[in-house]
Amino acid sequence: MQEALPKFGFRKIAESGQARLGEIATPHGRVRTPAFMPVGTVATVKALYPEQVKAAGADIVLANTYHLMLRPGAERVARLGGLHSFMRWEGPILTDSGGFQVMSLARIREVSEEGVRFSSHIDGSRHMLTPERAVEIQCLLGADIQMQLDECIELPAERAEAERAMELSLRWAERARGAFARQAAPGQALFAIVQGATDPELRARSAQALVGMDFPGYAIGGLAVGEGQAMMLATLDRVVPLLPAKKPRYLMGVGSPEDLIQSVARGIDMFDCVLPTRNGRHGLAFTWGGRVNLRNAKHAEDPSPLDPESSCPAARDYSRAYLHHLVRSGEYLGAMLLSWANTAFYQQLMAAMRAAIAADRFAAWAEETERRLAGVPD
Amino acid sequence: MQEALPKFGFRKIAESGQARLGEIATPHGRVRTPAFMPVGTVATVKALYPEQVKAAGADIVLANTYHLMLRPGAERVARLGGLHSFMRWEGPILTDSGGFQVMSLARIREVSEEGVRFSSHIDGSRHMLTPERAVEIQCLLGADIQMQLDECIELPAERAEAERAMELSLRWAERARGAFARQAAPGQALFAIVQGATDPELRARSAQALVGMDFPGYAIGGLAVGEGQAMMLATLDRVVPLLPAKKPRYLMGVGSPEDLIQSVARGIDMFDCVLPTRNGRHGLAFTWGGRVNLRNAKHAEDPSPLDPESSCPAARDYSRAYLHHLVRSGEYLGAMLLSWANTAFYQQLMAAMRAAIAADRFAAWAEETERRLAGVPD
Repeated sequence: MQEALPKFGFRKIAESGQARLGEIATPHGRVRTPAFMPVGTVATVKALYPEQVKAAGADIVLANTYHLMLRPGAERVARLGGLHSFMRWEGPILTDSGGFQVMSLARIREVSEEGVRFSSHIDGSRHMLTPERAVEIQCLLGADIQMQLDECIELPAERAEAERAMELSLRWAERARGAFARQAAPGQALFAIVQGATDPELRARSAQALVGMDFPGYAIGGLAVGEGQAMMLATLDRVVPLLPAKKPRYLMGVGSPEDLIQSVARGIDMFDCVLPTRNGRHGLAFTWGGRVNLRNAKHAEDPSPLDPESSCPAARDYSRAYLHHLVRSGEYLGAMLLSWANTAFYQQLMAAMRAAIAADRFAAWAEETERRLAGVPD
Repeated sequence: MQEALPKFGFRKIAESGQARLGEIATPHGRVRTPAFMPVGTVATVKALYPEQVKAAGADIVLANTYHLMLRPGAERVARLGGLHSFMRWEGPILTDSGGFQVMSLARIREVSEEGVRFSSHIDGSRHMLTPERAVEIQCLLGADIQMQLDECIELPAERAEAERAMELSLRWAERARGAFARQAAPGQALFAIVQGATDPELRARSAQALVGMDFPGYAIGGLAVGEGQAMMLATLDRVVPLLPAKKPRYLMGVGSPEDLIQSVARGIDMFDCVLPTRNGRHGLAFTWGGRVNLRNAKHAEDPSPLDPESSCPAARDYSRAYLHHLVRSGEYLGAMLLSWANTAFYQQLMAAMRAAIAADRFAAWAEETERRLAGVPD
């Protein structure tokens, strides 16, 4: 802990255009922003040792309320001393509330005013997730940053349906806030989630109502679900100016390197996405020279490393030929190395963004970098 | 390399009963014996980084001619600079000849005097493996220790069938020796393989004939294929005394910790087995307190480490509860940690054997250790 009485806080250090350099203080240490949070869905960033995640430069990881409530169970994690010690991650942890996973994974969902009743995708068992229970679970896990339960709907959606879900999520935000106030530990924080699909008016109403409730941080949810980058950025253009400048802004479930750059340019401070690890498991690598599909036959006899500009051993010390062989053979080490290289690339990208903001040249850096990342199509 | 002119050699350092402490010199460094070789079938010890294999205490790894000839291909590995640099393993490598894998994996096998014609288990493509081609492949890979091609038959087998295969393997040994003499690099060595199923007379004839050809090392093949430990040890009792004391002895495909202890007690110097890594991928751990099945519900809330006596971080730094969760969730990290812990346990077991031989108390150590390893049934 950084202070005798741990306290959540965000401070802006520099700006470049709308891009912000900052720092979030949590009971488990600071988070340099803009930050990308590796996704540790079930209390492990897939195919990585926690030491590798840390060494790659990540300050904070994300874990999932939905997955952990089903297995191993929040009460069990609490009895074992909390999520930090359970997964051997000493830094800050943000937990998603489960709203998105209930929509995308659970079987048989019934949304009511009270919450959402669903069947586990693992064993079909029945569960109820309410705004209060989502907070309780996240307190049991010991998350430094919690997310309110929200209702995520599929896009495209009818406006009436988007409005209903957004209004429900607002009422759930208020209930989550009450539950959080009663049981959270000092220094923990609860973020609200702006919803409203791709409707500018709904998004604005959601943002304004949540800002009125004065949360310590604001997420933008319900994006990156197939609406396309242009629509996503248009939504950011609409929502971000409505959020308080002194609070961190978190764009959930985003995204590609290009998405991150464009979103930071619009004032986003935090991200999470399964892309680096999921792509790694499928033989796809992110490098400073662009995307590389290691399955491609052209790598079969290439002795060069994946990315000589990376500081990650996975990207620097193994030949593309060997990575190709591992991926083609379906070997664990292929998934391990590429998940590691991608996780490191994402952290290096965030570090480069932070440096560009500090130097007040984010726009120029972004243009150069997007050109580099476009690379040679693979 | 340890010498200006690399030279293969074996020296005995100490004995305790029939157990031998020794050292094998190879072009890529020494191997402390008794040695357990982690299996890197397709040029990767499954779910481990090469640095972990080394740090666990392994001096040498095994790779498979059969797998590597099919993918990525021996000529390709040679063009990439050989197997050591391809898989980033700087220490000695032993390659199996492919005889066993052709029997156990390939589709449609036709054994003739010339060799064995088979279909790849990967894509059905047709291949021919002869004693000469097996040597050529192992030279292309750059193996420090090669194995002759042999014919492995399934047990139980008719005596006539076992005799035919044993006699054929003898003729193949002679042909392999000729091919090896023509193309091997300085310091590389070719081992012969004693066959003859579980027939004492056939085993003796095989051993005597091969010893007459004067190979630098002798393997005992065709065991650990379901005949049971008693029959395997009886075969060792028959064969080992026929092998020259000044040459290393390698028991192929063996085995459990108890098998290793009993075989070292009978004068075996080298082993390989998929057990530590395969079991690791299935949630089964070897520890100094015995076998542990991490799937068992009794570990679900156990905060203790897998094996506090292990020097391996995987066995020491993570709770059984977390390992249980990872295994139940089918997570990569579960397979990674348990493969690592098991690989380290096997190396620690070999180190303990070497220390016991050096102290000339192998029999007493073996008795104590077998009792410890019997542990509490899990």
